[in-house]
Amino acid sequence: MKSLTEYLWFDTEKKKEIVHITETIRAIVAKSDVSEGFVLVSAMHITAAVYVNDLEDGLIEDIWEWLEGLAPYKSGYRHHMSGEDNGDAHLKNLIMHHQVLVPVTKGDLDLGPWQRIFYAEFDGQRRKRVVVKVLGE
Amino acid sequence: MKSLTEYLWFDTEKKKEIVHITETIRAIVAKSDVSEGFVLVSAMHITAAVYVNDLEDGLIEDIWEWLEGLAPYKSGYRHHMSGEDNGDAHLKNLIMHHQVLVPVTKGDLDLGPWQRIFYAEFDGQRRKRVVVKVLGE
Amino acid sequence: MKSLTEYLWFDTEKKKEIVHITETIRAIVAKSDVSEGFVLVSAMHITAAVYVNDLEDGLIEDIWEWLEGLAPYKSGYRHHMSGEDNGDAHLKNLIMHHQVLVPVTKGDLDLGPWQRIFYAEFDGQRRKRVVVKVLGE
Repeated sequence: MKSLTEYLWFDTEKKKEIVHITETIRAIVAKSDVSEGFVLVSAMHITAAVYVNDLEDGLIEDIWEWLEGLAPYKSGYRHHMSGEDNGDAHLKNLIMHHQVLVPVTKGDLDLGPWQRIFYAEFDGQRRKRVVVKVLGE
Repeated sequence: MKSLTEYLWFDTEKKKEIVHITETIRAIVAKSDVSEGFVLVSAMHITAAVYVNDLEDGLIEDIWEWLEGLAPYKSGYRHHMSGEDNGDAHLKNLIMHHQVLVPVTKGDLDLGPWQRIFYAEFDGQRRKRVVVKVLGE
Repeated sequence: MKSLTEYLWFDTEKKKEIVHITETIRAIVAKSDVSEGFVLVSAMHITAAVYVNDLEDGLIEDIWEWLEGLAPYKSGYRHHMSGEDNGDAHLKNLIMHHQVLVPVTKGDLDLGPWQRIFYAEFDGQRRKRVVVKVLGE
């Protein structure tokens, strides 16, 4: 069995930002020399997500608007009594999830034709990490 | 380490449809000869989901109604400017997620008494795939 | 390859309750003697979730209020015609998901500084299980 663990650092310019990371993950899989296995891509923070969907600017704007409706930025979250103002970012993390598991087949990401991997930052402008772990043979 | 990768094809009659696939996944696990491991069941499209819940017709109707409330089919998604009309299907995919990882124990799916695996199609009537990958020993 | 499978039992005092389980999962990983791998933590019931987020009481109350808004407890679910009254618990399971996969690195959970693992019960006061499966080397 082979394994490789790498950490990606993000420090987004904006508070909320979506970053396309498919090619970064593909390069880590190539480096791992795993031909059959899984690669886990998992945010290490509770106010960010990792998801798979379409690389299309209109849709990305739709996702932001939709998320804001389901988990709005607002005052009034009890969590803010701890000194934070990011209650919405925690809820957005729960809806979008913090991780995906991508199959590795014949040494490459086994994704469908339109599937791309994204890091979604809900409380940025500071350094945050994603763990990428490849396991297989 | 053993691995087996198979692809399931779907071409649903209706635009939106839920298909029960537990027994199909169980047969792939049996074929893999893996006794301890994981099986990943992951939609390869960004307008479909794979989830685990109850095989009960009333609940399945409840899920549709609920999803339609949270991510409605409508005009007005920016994504539609790219020529598509399936913005809601992308958002339904994000809520329901495109994948589950099922533990394999003693050669079988290690599911609870009521857990069943489903493919949920949000933009069907065309050929789409799910990847099933078993990894273990 | 090494693997270890354990089952956690829950029987919560309240119908809806969130239980912090990070240290329980850490102990299972230690027992498995896996240094590089994955640990899957997955509810075996369709009215409960396993998630990763913050151990902060205010936020946990925010999560309950938010979930109740998105998937309310109410009469009128078609699922209730089967004799149940827990339609909301099924939908809460779908939003929050029933599982997380935690990377194991150097023999320990590879979590970020604020990430904690939780079991969320949506229809408790009876015995329910979570499967914990460690796989690696």
